[in-house]
Amino acid sequence: MFAKRTGQMKRTAVRELLKVAARPEIISFAGGLPAAELFPVSRVSDAVTRVLDHFGGMSLQYGETEGLAGLREWVATQFTKQQLGSRGRGVRAPMRPENVIITSGAQQALDLVGQVLLEEGDRVVVENPTYLALLSAWRPHGVEFVPVRSDANGMRVAELERAFGRHPKLIYLTPNFQNPQGTTLSFERRKQLLRFATECGAGIVEDNPYGDLRYSGESVPHLLTLETNRTFPGPRFDSSSESLATNPHSVIYIGSFSKVLMPGLRVGWVIAAPEVIEKLVQAKQSADLHTNSLGQHIVLDLLTQGYLEEFLPRLKETYRQRRDAMLEALERFFPRDVSWTRPDGGMFLMARLPSVDATALLPHALEQGVAYVPGEEFHLGGEGKNTMRLNFSNARPGQIQIGIERLGALVAENLGVPANSLRRRGQHAPGVH
Amino acid sequence: MFAKRTGQMKRTAVRELLKVAARPEIISFAGGLPAAELFPVSRVSDAVTRVLDHFGGMSLQYGETEGLAGLREWVATQFTKQQLGSRGRGVRAPMRPENVIITSGAQQALDLVGQVLLEEGDRVVVENPTYLALLSAWRPHGVEFVPVRSDANGMRVAELERAFGRHPKLIYLTPNFQNPQGTTLSFERRKQLLRFATECGAGIVEDNPYGDLRYSGESVPHLLTLETNRTFPGPRFDSSSESLATNPHSVIYIGSFSKVLMPGLRVGWVIAAPEVIEKLVQAKQSADLHTNSLGQHIVLDLLTQGYLEEFLPRLKETYRQRRDAMLEALERFFPRDVSWTRPDGGMFLMARLPSVDATALLPHALEQGVAYVPGEEFHLGGEGKNTMRLNFSNARPGQIQIGIERLGALVAENLGVPANSLRRRGQHAPGVH
Repeated sequence: MFAKRTGQMKRTAVRELLKVAARPEIISFAGGLPAAELFPVSRVSDAVTRVLDHFGGMSLQYGETEGLAGLREWVATQFTKQQLGSRGRGVRAPMRPENVIITSGAQQALDLVGQVLLEEGDRVVVENPTYLALLSAWRPHGVEFVPVRSDANGMRVAELERAFGRHPKLIYLTPNFQNPQGTTLSFERRKQLLRFATECGAGIVEDNPYGDLRYSGESVPHLLTLETNRTFPGPRFDSSSESLATNPHSVIYIGSFSKVLMPGLRVGWVIAAPEVIEKLVQAKQSADLHTNSLGQHIVLDLLTQGYLEEFLPRLKETYRQRRDAMLEALERFFPRDVSWTRPDGGMFLMARLPSVDATALLPHALEQGVAYVPGEEFHLGGEGKNTMRLNFSNARPGQIQIGIERLGALVAENLGVPANSLRRRGQHAPGVH
Repeated sequence: MFAKRTGQMKRTAVRELLKVAARPEIISFAGGLPAAELFPVSRVSDAVTRVLDHFGGMSLQYGETEGLAGLREWVATQFTKQQLGSRGRGVRAPMRPENVIITSGAQQALDLVGQVLLEEGDRVVVENPTYLALLSAWRPHGVEFVPVRSDANGMRVAELERAFGRHPKLIYLTPNFQNPQGTTLSFERRKQLLRFATECGAGIVEDNPYGDLRYSGESVPHLLTLETNRTFPGPRFDSSSESLATNPHSVIYIGSFSKVLMPGLRVGWVIAAPEVIEKLVQAKQSADLHTNSLGQHIVLDLLTQGYLEEFLPRLKETYRQRRDAMLEALERFFPRDVSWTRPDGGMFLMARLPSVDATALLPHALEQGVAYVPGEEFHLGGEGKNTMRLNFSNARPGQIQIGIERLGALVAENLGVPANSLRRRGQHAPGVH
């Protein structure tokens, strides 16, 4: 009865896990949830009042598939501002509303990009490990995933250059604070990656849901910014000359309000060449007609009121404290032989155990009231069995400390070493694996 | 660069049309828009306040892919109530939450059903004409559409029985107040269709966005109700015995709040066997993770407050007046040789011109400030060039009269007959074509 591709669809362990992890007595490092206690409930309430007063029933009516015009405009303008800010290079090609489609969250953006670009047998480069739901979205198209290892500086682009007989169609990556590792692709590697993509004619999908959540270190320009500056190497862009609106380019950028505002509104976006946006619009029309109107209006209202500038610093400070609490607790409570990544932002880090199977350990962790996602889930080629993804955004520092202490004791027990409650900080090499 | 299936995606004429038709000076019979002036703006405002007070940030957090538990429960219960009410047959198999997935509007339901069930070469029976966005959603799967003619009683099921060498995989239809014709499948034909589907092992997709918008005539049981009553022919259902939860069935029912509440929230649903729901959930997880949380909460709050019982009669009365205004105006202003359907509900009717190409006529109509959708758009096999779909839900009776008068004059001119402003009512045979 079902189509062949349906056999490729599976409930992921993450999904099943999340059900257990949702119990209030569990300290969960498993989900990818923002901190709901920070959501601006009264601001949303005010925004709804303003939206309904101003737009009335039209804010509840069918809308355009491309998305709310004002929101597309905001996304284009905001990206252009970031380009301007990026190492003072100036903007060669500002983004325009026709470079933007609003999607039902970044997940739909990924799904639509796959629908529009991928077909059976296409090779798709991904980091290993990579974002789980990307694999499930694109696997039904019958593509071949080509995993490339990552380290503390993100995807090892040099390995990618050596890896190919046949060229990839697409390269998918999360350059900033990757899910699951929290790592960031270095500036040098970004340039190297763009060179590689140009040489072999591959497209790049730059998935950037966490980019605005930086707690330390210096920001690195977007791949799309680097590419447009390279494609338009002349003096600062003159709006009467050619622009992205008339030039194809190979980077497809995906963004989201889920991590910087609220995920439940399901509002994300794609920035790409207008030819690509046009096809995404056609695919979206069949997928869900348009993104929910009220959610888009609420987001636009909050942005227009300057709420992001007010909220984002607060959010980042909270998450920074939680990240630091987790890093400190790992130092204190995890055995010496365990390493972990030290993200400059985002919501996740990844721990690597010397010899313990993290999937097998999980039921014991749940018994101790602690949840995480076994890293195996995110890996291709059967790797990563000894890794665990730890989310630090959705528990308070005190809880993080308790949870990591319990987890450390469990890991120590499984390694046959004493629980490490006295480990000195700084003994451990930076969490590269 | 694009996948082959992307070549199948096109901007539809309807889409491009809607842009022109949105101008305020145009009397538009083109869209499929509910009347935004009736949307309960202040009720939505109250609902948001209640939801945010009660659920706080959790109403803005990520949610379950299946949909809000309370909303799935409401959909299941409501359907069971309708089964109960349907010709006093009693309910053999009440629907349960595990029979329900909440989708981002009924369009996503259609898209997910296609993803999960259809593959290249599958035959799909559709009414001719049929819902346009169904064709664009399923065409990329490489299916073969088999059109079956319709008349005033809906799909001519007897023709379907004669049409097949190779069995269809799915039969798609809108049994109530079909888009674009407004016709309803008769009770006898529903039974006949179920027999046919059972014999050839085909699934039925029962798309019912307009079912609750009945203005005249007697309601006909859902195909899903008829099938479950047949599958469970024993005495009234005993909750301890087998149910749909343990029995596969072949009808996939699709519903929506877009037409009875507000479309901009993008909340629809599927009722089907749990095995089907499970696969739809997996596909939806990749498609957009979940339907927007706030929209689901608003809908559930309005339903819980009993708002549908209050609003629906008002909505139906308004639309009934508009339907009647259009039927009267057609009688008065359209030439004798034109026929049209006389829907008992919904939002559309279809007019059939004797020899005029409705697509070619459209630019002239727009010049006159009137918009409609050429019926050709909804037809397969190059048929329907002489038909126009007329929406009556989104213009007030006075505007409808003016618009139809202008359109009638234009049609008369093209037929070379005098404008028919004096035509007596009742001369014309019921609008069956």
